[in-house]
Amino acid sequence: MLFGTLQLSTSAPMELIDITARIQELVSAQGLEAGICTLFNPHTTAGVTINEGADPDVQDDLIGALRRIVPRDYPYKHREGNSPSHVMASLTGSSLAVPFVDGSLRLGTWQRIFFCEYDGPRQRSLNWYIQTG
Amino acid sequence: MLFGTLQLSTSAPMELIDITARIQELVSAQGLEAGICTLFNPHTTAGVTINEGADPDVQDDLIGALRRIVPRDYPYKHREGNSPSHVMASLTGSSLAVPFVDGSLRLGTWQRIFFCEYDGPRQRSLNWYIQTG
Amino acid sequence: MLFGTLQLSTSAPMELIDITARIQELVSAQGLEAGICTLFNPHTTAGVTINEGADPDVQDDLIGALRRIVPRDYPYKHREGNSPSHVMASLTGSSLAVPFVDGSLRLGTWQRIFFCEYDGPRQRSLNWYIQTG
Repeated sequence: MLFGTLQLSTSAPMELIDITARIQELVSAQGLEAGICTLFNPHTTAGVTINEGADPDVQDDLIGALRRIVPRDYPYKHREGNSPSHVMASLTGSSLAVPFVDGSLRLGTWQRIFFCEYDGPRQRSLNWYIQTG
Repeated sequence: MLFGTLQLSTSAPMELIDITARIQELVSAQGLEAGICTLFNPHTTAGVTINEGADPDVQDDLIGALRRIVPRDYPYKHREGNSPSHVMASLTGSSLAVPFVDGSLRLGTWQRIFFCEYDGPRQRSLNWYIQTG
Repeated sequence: MLFGTLQLSTSAPMELIDITARIQELVSAQGLEAGICTLFNPHTTAGVTINEGADPDVQDDLIGALRRIVPRDYPYKHREGNSPSHVMASLTGSSLAVPFVDGSLRLGTWQRIFFCEYDGPRQRSLNWYIQTG
């Protein structure tokens, strides 16, 4: 198993950052033919997801929908004020399986990989693991 | 790593299609003892999930709940009119890990594997990857 | 691939149980250096998630948010009365990928692994699979 960490800077309270090119780059750098790259987000107020990247409106609509699904204006118990961000992290999940074949990510035509900031802006990291067995 | 693609036809705007038998069949066809079959959905308005298959009402209730969680009647920015489908794709996720031992899927008693159509009817594909390491 | 099953007892209708120490223990017991431990929940009214464990209020807020996202008081078709639990299972997902390096789980500072009971109290099991390839 190969592994490493990417660093990211986010610039808004909620933001989807397209990291597809960076994931393709790190997979290419290993010189492997086929396998699965697991992206693991080590934060509890952020996430990772795969969705459409062609029209940025889709990203805005996803952020808007998450805000309506987990509204800020509720008497949450957690005092830090970021309970909605924690809930979003569990809704979208902590990791992604990204397959690659012939060294290329096997994503669908419209799919892009996004790091999801739910409580930014912050410095974030994203761990990756590649298994070829 | 072994891999391939399944083809599916969906017949409704939203639909859960039980693909458990097809996944068991493809795993059996490889003649492997134990491993994990990763199902990767390459579409941005569809998904994959594992849930109860015995009572079809559960599938209807899941579709109904997703429709209430991400209602159609909202001024989304994305012009194609399928923003709710994109949001549902991120809520249920782009892939599933399905373990098998002695050539048999290790699902719970009531569990079945479903392809989730969120913007049908369409021709869809589903990619699979088997790792045994 | 190594694999096994953990047993759990839940004590409430909805409950998050921190299983991080048990997962670390089972990983340590295998004496492996690096790999991914896939936790697979075989139940259709339960789940697994990774979130903050330091402040138990976060767990309460997550349970409360799921209850509002999938309310009990709706005319669901499924007669057993636990349709919301099934929906929650699909929202948080059936499995988790938990990486480990040098025998230690590679979680973020605040991350803990939780078994999610959505229809308890019950006796539950959780399957694990470790791949090192």
